[in-house]
Amino acid sequence: MLRQCATRLSRPSPLRAIAIRADCFATSSARRTDRAVIYAENGNPAEVLRVKSYDPLPPPPPGSVNIRFRLSPINPSDINVVQGVYPAKPTQQHVSGEDVFIGGNEGLAEVVDVGSNVDGLHKGDWVTLGKAQFGTWASTRVISAEDVIKLPAGGFSEVNAATINVNPPTAYNMLHQFVDLKEDDWVLQNGANSAVGQAVIQIAARKGIKTINFVRSRPDLDNLICSLTQLGATHVFTYDALSDKSLAKHVKQWTSKSPIRLLLNCVSGPDTTAMTRLLGDNAHLVSYGAMSKKPLSLPTSLFIFKNLTTHGYWQHRWYQEHSRQEREKLMRTLANLKLKEPEHEILDLSGEPSDEAATKRLRDTLTKIEAGFSKKVLLRLQ
Amino acid sequence: MLRQCATRLSRPSPLRAIAIRADCFATSSARRTDRAVIYAENGNPAEVLRVKSYDPLPPPPPGSVNIRFRLSPINPSDINVVQGVYPAKPTQQHVSGEDVFIGGNEGLAEVVDVGSNVDGLHKGDWVTLGKAQFGTWASTRVISAEDVIKLPAGGFSEVNAATINVNPPTAYNMLHQFVDLKEDDWVLQNGANSAVGQAVIQIAARKGIKTINFVRSRPDLDNLICSLTQLGATHVFTYDALSDKSLAKHVKQWTSKSPIRLLLNCVSGPDTTAMTRLLGDNAHLVSYGAMSKKPLSLPTSLFIFKNLTTHGYWQHRWYQEHSRQEREKLMRTLANLKLKEPEHEILDLSGEPSDEAATKRLRDTLTKIEAGFSKKVLLRLQ
Repeated sequence: MLRQCATRLSRPSPLRAIAIRADCFATSSARRTDRAVIYAENGNPAEVLRVKSYDPLPPPPPGSVNIRFRLSPINPSDINVVQGVYPAKPTQQHVSGEDVFIGGNEGLAEVVDVGSNVDGLHKGDWVTLGKAQFGTWASTRVISAEDVIKLPAGGFSEVNAATINVNPPTAYNMLHQFVDLKEDDWVLQNGANSAVGQAVIQIAARKGIKTINFVRSRPDLDNLICSLTQLGATHVFTYDALSDKSLAKHVKQWTSKSPIRLLLNCVSGPDTTAMTRLLGDNAHLVSYGAMSKKPLSLPTSLFIFKNLTTHGYWQHRWYQEHSRQEREKLMRTLANLKLKEPEHEILDLSGEPSDEAATKRLRDTLTKIEAGFSKKVLLRLQ
Repeated sequence: MLRQCATRLSRPSPLRAIAIRADCFATSSARRTDRAVIYAENGNPAEVLRVKSYDPLPPPPPGSVNIRFRLSPINPSDINVVQGVYPAKPTQQHVSGEDVFIGGNEGLAEVVDVGSNVDGLHKGDWVTLGKAQFGTWASTRVISAEDVIKLPAGGFSEVNAATINVNPPTAYNMLHQFVDLKEDDWVLQNGANSAVGQAVIQIAARKGIKTINFVRSRPDLDNLICSLTQLGATHVFTYDALSDKSLAKHVKQWTSKSPIRLLLNCVSGPDTTAMTRLLGDNAHLVSYGAMSKKPLSLPTSLFIFKNLTTHGYWQHRWYQEHSRQEREKLMRTLANLKLKEPEHEILDLSGEPSDEAATKRLRDTLTKIEAGFSKKVLLRLQ
């Protein structure tokens, strides 16, 4: 059940990150058409989303900055927002004479113009968003200085910076908010191949915390196990292992000095119920997703006699409850962790001659995502 | 659905409590045979439990006291312990040449002899147990002074003192440990007719906290609603109301200024799932039982987007984690609340001429409990 993996991934060097930034600065002087990916009403993203050009922004009002998005991911939750099935909703925007919504919750932007009465932000700064559902699938936006999070200079590659807003802080905070974990403690997680799961493995490994990771079975399972092990996973299992009685014995042996006190869950359903039996006393189960679309069903005895506590985690709420200073501190912490870039593909619409051509390419990609394309797609509009 | 109840229960007066004590002291000088309710192995209580006489105790060793039990309840969890299906186990005792277990977890005892090096305990003090599964179905026991909790003099009636160890502190601590409740806040609970549920209603009402209470439908429902309303319940419903869509609207209206943040659960199963939909954001669901014998099954979205937290509560753990001073402080707090005595019947075996006759009466009562006798049975051995 436990597979070994000999090779170790080479980490992106700081030099490489600098090279990427230099290249990006060079392209930033090219001729631009400002465009946004918009929708007038909820529905199937491949049908309701379209690309629309708009006039250049006026200078920002006091307390605000104009930002230019460099790279914005298309996350599963963004799809849910467009479908209208996500609890957080964007506010309507006026784009070239139309009242619409702009897609996107996450992205890397660069400050291009600074209004009066703005402290600590300068032209050229890399920023991400402290405000949820802001609409990051746009070339340029004006935004209150309080709603951006300045990223540490040189701290992230462009891809890491564009994907730093949700998944890595979710992983980091779940590992720190609920249990005071020390070196050689254990964490159990499912959906270990998710972006959050991979960040959990890496952040835990940096602190010497061991992880027991569950993934779905798949044809290329050995490759996946190898890749998660290279990230720092201690053990990787498929959910089938949960019906093997020897698993509980092994886990008990491994964790005898430090019974597992943290389970991170993005799956729910019966497999997660089975995973809770591997926990020690006084454990915390933290849910941040429910990919099985089934409820979290637990024997009441676990709560009463083993003192299990179950929580949810939503990065959106964390941003609402924390100041700009606290957000920027978290970003500096994440930068120091030098997480591996997620596997990704860049959808570059900057060269498309018309909104129609850009819309067609966008919709083709959305159809591919809908069909189960596994890499993260990052949108570049200029 | 909401029933009104005009009459108010008269509370037991302090004079009545004193009268009961006086009476009890009077009987304590009668001739005694020390007896215990014992079992050699787990099984059906009506078959494995028996009454056995034993010699009077020697004087207590240093740091210990001899206590005489006045009244000890037969709780549902005691039955589970005898059956061998409860997670806490008693330790074996030597009774008249036999290695056996003594039943009972809760009870009112009186200090009858104080060993050397014991502070703060005197002959005649009323005490209850700080140690779980001590074996309270016995005339006399020797116990470490650290394992008793002294009750405030005159603070409780004999019946209240005998039932103060588990249910009232469970209710009190669940109302205070998880949410900082203020006057006019709301608490939701199921199993509201349980001993804990009735204590919750009374303790909440004393602080001006409102309760929405769920009970099973039954032939004498109106009487039950009346009795819970007299205790201080704000609303009482049967679980059938959960399928009535107007309930959620009513609850929303009542609790609009203070959405419900605490749900106390001793049932689990689908009705409890339905009850969680009545909760506001940042609520805590605390389980202390699972009478439906079904799991607690919740949509993961409640954890993530509504920030629900679920916990367990076990009074046994609280005693383990708190000092004798803290335990006695809790008892003084409970005494001041003047809770109503639970409905009860006293099984007085003190007059039985032989162990066999006492065993027969005990087993008859256990059979009655097994068949669903609803009042609490309190055992008096002398």
